[in-house]
Parts: sequence; C-alpha cells; structure tokens
Amino acid sequence: MEHLVSMKDLTVEEIMLILDRAAIFKRLGFRELPGTYTVCNLFFEPSTRTKTSFEMAERKIGAQIIPFETSFSSTLKGETLYDTIRTLEAIGLDALVIRHPSDGFYEELIDRTNVAIINAGDGSGQHPTQSLLDLFTIQEEFGSFEGLKVLIAGDISHSRVARSNAEALQKLGAEVTFLCPPEWAGEFESVDNWDEVIETSDVVMLLRVQHERHNTEMAYTKAAYHEQYGLTVERAGRMKSEAIIMHPAPVNRDVEIADCLIESPQSRIFKQVENGVYIRAAVLELILKGRK
Amino acid sequence: MEHLVSMKDLTVEEIMLILDRAAIFKRLGFRELPGTYTVCNLFFEPSTRTKTSFEMAERKIGAQIIPFETSFSSTLKGETLYDTIRTLEAIGLDALVIRHPSDGFYEELIDRTNVAIINAGDGSGQHPTQSLLDLFTIQEEFGSFEGLKVLIAGDISHSRVARSNAEALQKLGAEVTFLCPPEWAGEFESVDNWDEVIETSDVVMLLRVQHERHNTEMAYTKAAYHEQYGLTVERAGRMKSEAIIMHPAPVNRDVEIADCLIESPQSRIFKQVENGVYIRAAVLELILKGRK
Amino acid sequence: MEHLVSMKDLTVEEIMLILDRAAIFKRLGFRELPGTYTVCNLFFEPSTRTKTSFEMAERKIGAQIIPFETSFSSTLKGETLYDTIRTLEAIGLDALVIRHPSDGFYEELIDRTNVAIINAGDGSGQHPTQSLLDLFTIQEEFGSFEGLKVLIAGDISHSRVARSNAEALQKLGAEVTFLCPPEWAGEFESVDNWDEVIETSDVVMLLRVQHERHNTEMAYTKAAYHEQYGLTVERAGRMKSEAIIMHPAPVNRDVEIADCLIESPQSRIFKQVENGVYIRAAVLELILKGRK
Repeated sequence: MEHLVSMKDLTVEEIMLILDRAAIFKRLGFRELPGTYTVCNLFFEPSTRTKTSFEMAERKIGAQIIPFETSFSSTLKGETLYDTIRTLEAIGLDALVIRHPSDGFYEELIDRTNVAIINAGDGSGQHPTQSLLDLFTIQEEFGSFEGLKVLIAGDISHSRVARSNAEALQKLGAEVTFLCPPEWAGEFESVDNWDEVIETSDVVMLLRVQHERHNTEMAYTKAAYHEQYGLTVERAGRMKSEAIIMHPAPVNRDVEIADCLIESPQSRIFKQVENGVYIRAAVLELILKGRK
Repeated sequence: MEHLVSMKDLTVEEIMLILDRAAIFKRLGFRELPGTYTVCNLFFEPSTRTKTSFEMAERKIGAQIIPFETSFSSTLKGETLYDTIRTLEAIGLDALVIRHPSDGFYEELIDRTNVAIINAGDGSGQHPTQSLLDLFTIQEEFGSFEGLKVLIAGDISHSRVARSNAEALQKLGAEVTFLCPPEWAGEFESVDNWDEVIETSDVVMLLRVQHERHNTEMAYTKAAYHEQYGLTVERAGRMKSEAIIMHPAPVNRDVEIADCLIESPQSRIFKQVENGVYIRAAVLELILKGRK
Repeated sequence: MEHLVSMKDLTVEEIMLILDRAAIFKRLGFRELPGTYTVCNLFFEPSTRTKTSFEMAERKIGAQIIPFETSFSSTLKGETLYDTIRTLEAIGLDALVIRHPSDGFYEELIDRTNVAIINAGDGSGQHPTQSLLDLFTIQEEFGSFEGLKVLIAGDISHSRVARSNAEALQKLGAEVTFLCPPEWAGEFESVDNWDEVIETSDVVMLLRVQHERHNTEMAYTKAAYHEQYGLTVERAGRMKSEAIIMHPAPVNRDVEIADCLIESPQSRIFKQVENGVYIRAAVLELILKGRK
C-alpha cells in the first residue's frame, strides 16, 4: 500500500490486515519501526482528535515529525498544494497526513509525487482512518461484520464518515441503513423514522450536524432536530441490550445525542478515540515499511 | 500529587519537596524519567516564557510531547473543554499543561478525568509554577523564608501571580505587603506609597500592568504610573543592598520598572526565567512518577 | 563561527568549509552531534520551505527543538524582540533561527546575547542559508565558481536572495549580471533585456516577484511581466545546453518562469530545496559545535 486516500481502494484483505495489526498493538503494545521515517501533518481545517491521534501514533511507531503550520505557510503567498507537496518531498519527507477542504484533493497528487499521502479527511469526501477505527471498534465488540445491522444517522450528505463507512461495512458483509431528514440524504437511500430501525440495529452510528457546512439557515432548531432525528433517552431505551452507540465526535450535546448518553454503558464514543491511535499506527507502519 | 492547579492545595512539605528537587536538577543536571510519558500543552492565551519553559522542562525529563494548536482545534467547532480533555485522555495523554482565560477552569475537570492537569495560569486566578519558581529564586538568595519582607507591587487584582505568591509566602513564614493604586487592590489590603516600604523590603516583586485586561481607559499614563507606582531608579537606590528585584515578565519597560534596572545587579528577572525550567521539570516528574 | 547573520561576514574559507560539510552529509549521510543542543525556530513571517528545511536539518543532527508560535507569543503583549531572545537564552536555548520582517533585526542582538543567532531572512536584507544552498547547487553542477556567468533576474531590490548571492558569488570569482525592470534595480546595476545575456549565462537564477512587498499597483500584468522579464519557453531554448535554471521558490508559475520549465531537465529548483537541508545541517553543526 503506497497511499491511503479512500476506503474504495482497500480490498477486504487489506482492511483485515490493518485491523489485525491494530489489535496486536492494542494487546501487546506499540513497536517502533526499524529505520528513520519522517512524517508531516498538514491540516488545512481545524481538528483536535484526528490530528492529535496521528501525532500520538507517529510517536508510538518512532517516526520523526516535522511540524507544519498551515495558517502560516507559503500557501499564503499563493503556492499551490502540488508545489507544497513537491517541496516537502524534496526536503525528505516520507509521508504526509493531509486534511483539506477540497473533495478529492489527493487526485492531482498521488501519481505525481513519491511521498506517501494519507487522507485525513477531504471536504465531504473520505476519511479512511476514521472509517477503519470505526470498523475496529465494531469488530472488537462483535467479532465479525457478517449480518450486522448498522444504522448511520444524521447529516449524511456532508459526512465523509458516512461515505467511507458505508462502503467498507457493505464490503465486509454488514447491512447499512441511513436515517436522516430527507433533504440531507444526498445520493443515499434513507429512512426518516427511528421506529422502523431502533429495535433491530446492532450499531447506532450517529454523525455530527455540521453547522459550519450548512450555508443556509438550518431548517431545524437544535431541540427540534434532537426530537425528530437525534438519539433521545427514550430511543436509546429501545435499543437491543447488546447494541452499541458510536459517534465520530466532536459531539453536539443534546442535538445528535442526549447529553447523558455520551458516556453511558452502551456508548463507545471515547473507545473509538482510543482505537484511532492503534489504527493510525497500523496504517503508518504498513505504508512506511513499504517504502524501503 | 495527582494534579497541580493551585498553591492552596500544596502543603509546606510538598512545596519544599519541589524546591529541593529543582535544586538538585540545577546542581547535578536533569534526569530522564524511566518509562514513556506523554504530555500536551494547551495554551488558550498567548505565552512565550511559560509555554517555552514547559516545553524545555518536558524534553529535559524525557517526556513525549504532543503539539496542540488551540487556535486551530475543534474548540472552533464548539467543543467543550471537558470533551477536549476527555478526548486527549482517550488518545493516551498522561498530563495536560493548560493555560485558560477562565478562573478555575480546572474545577469541572479534576474529578472527572484520569489525565493529570497542571494549571499554567487561569484567568486572574492561580499560576502555581510561576509561584514556585519565585519561591525557588527567593530561597536560592536568602536560604529561607522566615521573617523575609516581600513587597508585591502593581496590578494586584488582575494578577494570578500575586494571588499564588501571597498565599505561599505567608505559609512559609514571610511577611507580604501589597503596593498598588487603591482602585486596583481588589480583595487585598495594600499601601499606595513606596516611602513606607522601599527601605525595609528584602524582595521587591513587581507585577505587569496588564493593559490587555483593563477594559476601560487606563487611569494613568505610562509615565504617571511609573512615577507613582513603578520602581524608579531613585527608589531602587533606597533598597537594602542585599535586597532583590523580581518580575514575572514580560516587562513593560519604564512602566513597572525603569528600563536600566531590568538587568541591574539586584535584578533576578532572567534568573527567574532560568529557574522556571528546573521547577517545571520537578513538578512534572513528581506528577508523572505518581502515575505508574 | 558564533552567529550566521549575513554573507558579508563569511570568508571564502568559511563558505568552502560549509559547502564541503554539506557535500559529506549528502554523500555519507547525516551525523548526530555529540551532546544535546536545543534550538528554536522563530518565524515572524510565513514560510514553508525555509522553516521546514531547518526543522528537518535540526532533527538530522540530533538537536532538541523547542516550538515557538510567533502568532501566539508575548510579542502580542508588546514584548520586544530583545526581551524574547534574552528569555529564550535564560530558558537554555543554544541557537535561534529567526526570520523577521525588519532589515538587520539581528544587529541589536548579536553582541548582547550568548545564544547563537541564525538569520533565516531579514526583510529585504540577507538570507545566508538560501545563498549557501544556491552556491552548493552551483558547485555540485560546475565544480567551481571561477569565471562562471550568473544571471540574476527579477525583483532585485526586494530580494534578500539577490543581495546575499551577489556578494558571495563575486567573492568566489563568478561574474554576476542583474536583469530587471529599471525601476526595480535599486542600488544595483542591471540590464533590462534578455537578448544580451541569455545565450552566454551558465546559471539563470530567477527571483520571485514579491507581490506582497509591492505597496502600489504592479506596473505589469502577470502576462506582460512574463513576456518582458520572465524566462519564457523561447528564451529557455536559447540557453547553453549545460546551463541551469534556479529559483528560490515559491514560484509564481507563468510569471517569473513558464510553468512547463519548472520541472524541465535544466531546472534545479527542487534540487535546491533538497540541498537546503544539507546546508542547514552543516551551518547548525558548525555553530553548535563551537559552543562547547
């Protein structure tokens, strides 16, 4: 694996290889790579957990990390992303972890550089390491994916997570259902009523309402959204006892999910964050070891 | 010691333990901790010396450091401080060094997380490592605190340093007097005239005039403040020969203190900065070693 | 060598020493310094390649690096550069790499601090490591400088590169010619026509049009500038077959240089970036080894 830009490019075998490696790191501890590899994290959009998680994973596998302040770089002098990437390649970087607001930003890069590109979120497109950590968390819980009923609820059309996850889960044998306001479904088929699905789902995966990506006034107040499309305490009470709640975070408390459910026994929200470090270490190891 | 959020929580024994350890680092060199500990510095207000000093101390004791740009994090997406801290805990951080504009920001955190919190300044509240480095600098000079006359002069009510220091110095047996414009004294008793105190003080500890925290027009021009409440050359000439000048910096030259006194033989201003690294290394070591 | 602030201060012997050391690093790999040295990069102007290049070089020689966000430091509270530098010295820094918008910012510093200062670009003044990496790239190509014809074309008066390079190249025996719009020549003698020089130059060194430093409307559209003063495909075709094209980057594509020439066989633009890491490692090693 040379780059990781989209879940679409991963075979089932590659996905399982990454999940297995993450599980080994979690059980036996991280291992530093032999040799020195240098990595740079370029985040052109704000992020806490994804960036910090990569920073941790990079240290755990012993990579050297070059800092890069996107808010203070030559992109301010009008430099193109391609020129920035070629420059970092010339400086000697092995891998670049990039979050960028443009869908598919990586397409003009991957065939024109020798540095490895890891997509940490592109616009409303893909976010493959988030998807992999979600899979890892589900696998940890249920052992396998075959026949699992996964409900993805929320702002589907603006979500890179929905897109990445749906593809991967279906590849692995799970049944995915979307729930959202009809006008937010985009290209996806969806239901808009919890009653049909809450009692049969094994995984209730909530998405963030991306206030910052809705250009127009939201059609719903927070309370109205929560009432109609959020995971309320009442709905959570109708979940199967072994079903779990997931959310990529940051959470809008009492919008997508009732405040008191975030750290409830069925929630895996902070477990997902923890698992992200193992997954990213596994991805980085796989890509960096392939280079030399 | 699990957290360090306020000088109020420290016993005299704990204070002396930290000062002793700092003195050993200064005399014999730093020592790296056995094991790997990961630390993150979250500065929600600008800082040069405190942040840089922590960064240096963390490296000296061999901690792994995860960078965190507060100006480019999910707090921009409305994430609460509690959620950010829980996220960093899930990612695997051992300790968080936090500067935050809200007084007592740590109160909602310390009983709800397992990550250690070190307060690097909260609003107008506490700044315990600054206080400890001040104590270390005074101890280095005079050997003990018993009966020392310490004058704290300046913007008392907005100063976390004044608050932290006063409590600790009195605990250790020193006599603390405040000098400031009456309207800046806040809850403290104060004098407003140098004549009563300049000739008898052992330590003249100046505070920054915090232009950025005074919402209204300052009642004094810089020159008028200097003339009435600053340490002028004339006043410095009346100090006891063995007395010392301190200031937490950054200094407003010719406001709190005459420009030419900053690096004068009686000034310990840059010595304080140097001592800060030893104190912070001692605090971090104490807290991190307590974790495993 | 205690500081590196200007090419003017370097003897021919010192220049050759640095180029030789960079060549050894390139051929045999980097070597870590014995002992621990701590370095801080203070960039008061945006930069990608210079800052990232220093960050890489510092890691390659095994220095400890203290991060410093200029956009979030006490300079916002009005602290002077001198006080910031003295503070970093007190904290224990060995060397500071500084980019600053003021010409000659280092003059008030170098005799008043013990920390080593490396100038990474001062206003329209000097940029000695860029100059050294240009020399290294030319030396790698031609073996020596004696009698080489070097054309420097572009925004001469605002360019720290032009100034640094011209001085050094002439010291080493090269002939330097400037080409630019007459009103941009500043103190330099220049030609304003490619015909006289394109067929005889060994090195065509282009400079960035610094849109951000021209206060008034540019007198040229981009197309007009390219047509009259840029390296067009037609002009490149008239270059000697062994001549090379250089540019400090970031490049304004189709302004200083035709887009398709940037990665052409005669271009050394990304080679320059690569060479920068070797040069900066050599400079840092030389300065840091001199400290203990």
